[in-house]
Amino acid sequence: MRCDTLWKDARLATMADGGMGVVEQGVVAARDGAIIYAGPANDAPAFDAAESIGCDGRWITPGLIDCHTHLIHAGNRAQEFEMRLDGASYEDIARAGGGIVSTMRATRGASEDELVATALPRLDALLAEGVTTVEVKSGYGLDTASEIRMLRAARRLGAERRVRIATTFLGAHALPPEYAGDPDAYIATIVDTMLPEIARLGLADAVDAFCEGIGFTAEQTAHVFEAAKQAGLPVKLHAEQLSNQHGAALAAQYGALSADHLEYLGDDGVAAMAKAGTVATLLPGAYYFMRETKLPPVDALRAAGVPIALATDCNPGTSPLTSLLLVMNMGATLFRLTVAECLAGVTRNAAGALGLADRIGTLEAGKRCDLAIWDVERPAELVYRMGLNPLHARIWSGR
Amino acid sequence: MRCDTLWKDARLATMADGGMGVVEQGVVAARDGAIIYAGPANDAPAFDAAESIGCDGRWITPGLIDCHTHLIHAGNRAQEFEMRLDGASYEDIARAGGGIVSTMRATRGASEDELVATALPRLDALLAEGVTTVEVKSGYGLDTASEIRMLRAARRLGAERRVRIATTFLGAHALPPEYAGDPDAYIATIVDTMLPEIARLGLADAVDAFCEGIGFTAEQTAHVFEAAKQAGLPVKLHAEQLSNQHGAALAAQYGALSADHLEYLGDDGVAAMAKAGTVATLLPGAYYFMRETKLPPVDALRAAGVPIALATDCNPGTSPLTSLLLVMNMGATLFRLTVAECLAGVTRNAAGALGLADRIGTLEAGKRCDLAIWDVERPAELVYRMGLNPLHARIWSGR
Ligand SMILES: [Zn+2]
Ligand SMILES: [Zn+2]
Repeated sequence: MRCDTLWKDARLATMADGGMGVVEQGVVAARDGAIIYAGPANDAPAFDAAESIGCDGRWITPGLIDCHTHLIHAGNRAQEFEMRLDGASYEDIARAGGGIVSTMRATRGASEDELVATALPRLDALLAEGVTTVEVKSGYGLDTASEIRMLRAARRLGAERRVRIATTFLGAHALPPEYAGDPDAYIATIVDTMLPEIARLGLADAVDAFCEGIGFTAEQTAHVFEAAKQAGLPVKLHAEQLSNQHGAALAAQYGALSADHLEYLGDDGVAAMAKAGTVATLLPGAYYFMRETKLPPVDALRAAGVPIALATDCNPGTSPLTSLLLVMNMGATLFRLTVAECLAGVTRNAAGALGLADRIGTLEAGKRCDLAIWDVERPAELVYRMGLNPLHARIWSGR
Repeated sequence: MRCDTLWKDARLATMADGGMGVVEQGVVAARDGAIIYAGPANDAPAFDAAESIGCDGRWITPGLIDCHTHLIHAGNRAQEFEMRLDGASYEDIARAGGGIVSTMRATRGASEDELVATALPRLDALLAEGVTTVEVKSGYGLDTASEIRMLRAARRLGAERRVRIATTFLGAHALPPEYAGDPDAYIATIVDTMLPEIARLGLADAVDAFCEGIGFTAEQTAHVFEAAKQAGLPVKLHAEQLSNQHGAALAAQYGALSADHLEYLGDDGVAAMAKAGTVATLLPGAYYFMRETKLPPVDALRAAGVPIALATDCNPGTSPLTSLLLVMNMGATLFRLTVAECLAGVTRNAAGALGLADRIGTLEAGKRCDLAIWDVERPAELVYRMGLNPLHARIWSGR
């Protein structure tokens, strides 16, 4: 059988059988950017490969997927971080121009080129650890033009680098100052203007909101979800991060791809997510950085069979994090996920959280050939270490 | 004034004035590997520089110092990590050959070349983030020949890379199985044979021990310290990690360079350390990885004026960590150290913990010219971010 590239003498974690799908003597064959075989060398057809690559027993996993980021933003909040450690109160920081509004101001003031340029080092840090797909949200523009500029910048990342970008419109991230005291009016603008325009331009692959006491109510979130439905876009939700607003259950009602954060998720939310097939995207970087102590209900999610994803939540305020390897370590250390769960969380289940489970996330014939090849003796090393990058090679769409 | 290299148009965090020693328009001049000037461009003498390097406003800090590592070891404990997450008990892991004894066996079985080769990727990860000095302990050999082999391997790291290695003899790290039930006999071997031999060979710059319920008693530790004194070597101690054994106070009595870990340090220990000038080396990686909840007494250390250092504690069992940038983030996030304290912890105070405060750790005339040059807008970014390496250049001994 003809193929473009054949990776031989590899160990595989295909992530295709519900667990790690370990193959001790494996090969992967790619043609036209897709996997045409991934499995035991013994069972493989005879390949006529244009290029054949010996892997010396290295491990191959699916390319990693970061399914929740705010990678596009201007400025950083290091000064706010410093002030807080020096004992400043939230009021002090707000008076000094800090908080999410400072990121909104900087982002509104940045050109599309500047947004791309400042995001590239963050993207490159992810790619250096074997990431091949990245979700990127809007949500720091908070007006139509700025949200569109963020999403265009996000799409451009996929032209600047060999990576798949999934974009998410997060207009309902925070209330912009010009709507202070009237969140319903802002939601109406999202529903009537921003979302239809962004959908028409094809700039968003999904729609997200922040359902929280300091964000938007479940009712406001439902309005946004209805508009997404009208526009034919799938939804996801920042839910139950700081309190139980029953946002995850609402998201599940709308067939959400994922509900994210979930520290305060209750049994009703777990049941609704299980029924709807909604992925639970856990974000241990934000949990760690904000010194949260309430753990997400991992045992209940497991028991109900809710798929668990892990992501960086890369953002300047609550998770300035650009290492998916470190996210896996945090998933294990802080949330007690197993090694297999951590790996599934940044591959198979992360693909599910983006509605891309049919295209990426496992090593199986028919999927895109996105691979990470690792200098490790066992997959557990990818989760166990902190600050060491054992990536040998990253393959995106077959090369 | 003649110099070899002049770094111009830089912002400096000299770390020389007790705080960060910020200089907004600074230059650094080096001759014969030493700093001959570091400070404001305005106050600098006229230099006749063989090489002049424009820094475009980048920040220069002292080269970072990792003052507590177990970088030399064979094998890793990823399997044990995986088993524990899968619910295995410590007994299960011990039966499967895990724990510190597994590292001892692997290390005893490794040649000096193998010990060097397996440590180099860990060392390279540190150096990539601007580290210029690394302390390396023995303590997985636990017999004379193997401890000597570890220390020789550690010294060789300093020949393989442009880095300063400080070695520490940690024979009293754990009880080797051949002395099971008779720790006093092992301590006698350390005191009578191992330590004098290692001192005679000039392989150790300091002597360390693990004073703990699962380690050695204060009395046994004192015997080791007496032997170190005889041999003319300074001491340090793994103290108060899991319980208060009053090890730090004992170490201070012997004028210890540092007492390390210190989660369970009491007021007596703080006072003794302050009086003796012993550095408190905090190890947030081990705190995080072991899910410790008892915080070291940072406020008491501050109030007493005890210098605080931060280090990776890089080791396969409790801190498989090779990022000093991440250690700073953990110091701030988990221990609430300020940005200035975190930076001092991996520069000035880390130098103190190695007895090298007169040679490295600040940007001052007369010190070795070890620099880290960073692509950041303010030093706080070095502490704030996780997983992004903004190092522009690393300079060791002037080049
Ligand atoms: Zn988010
Ligand atoms: Zn240690």
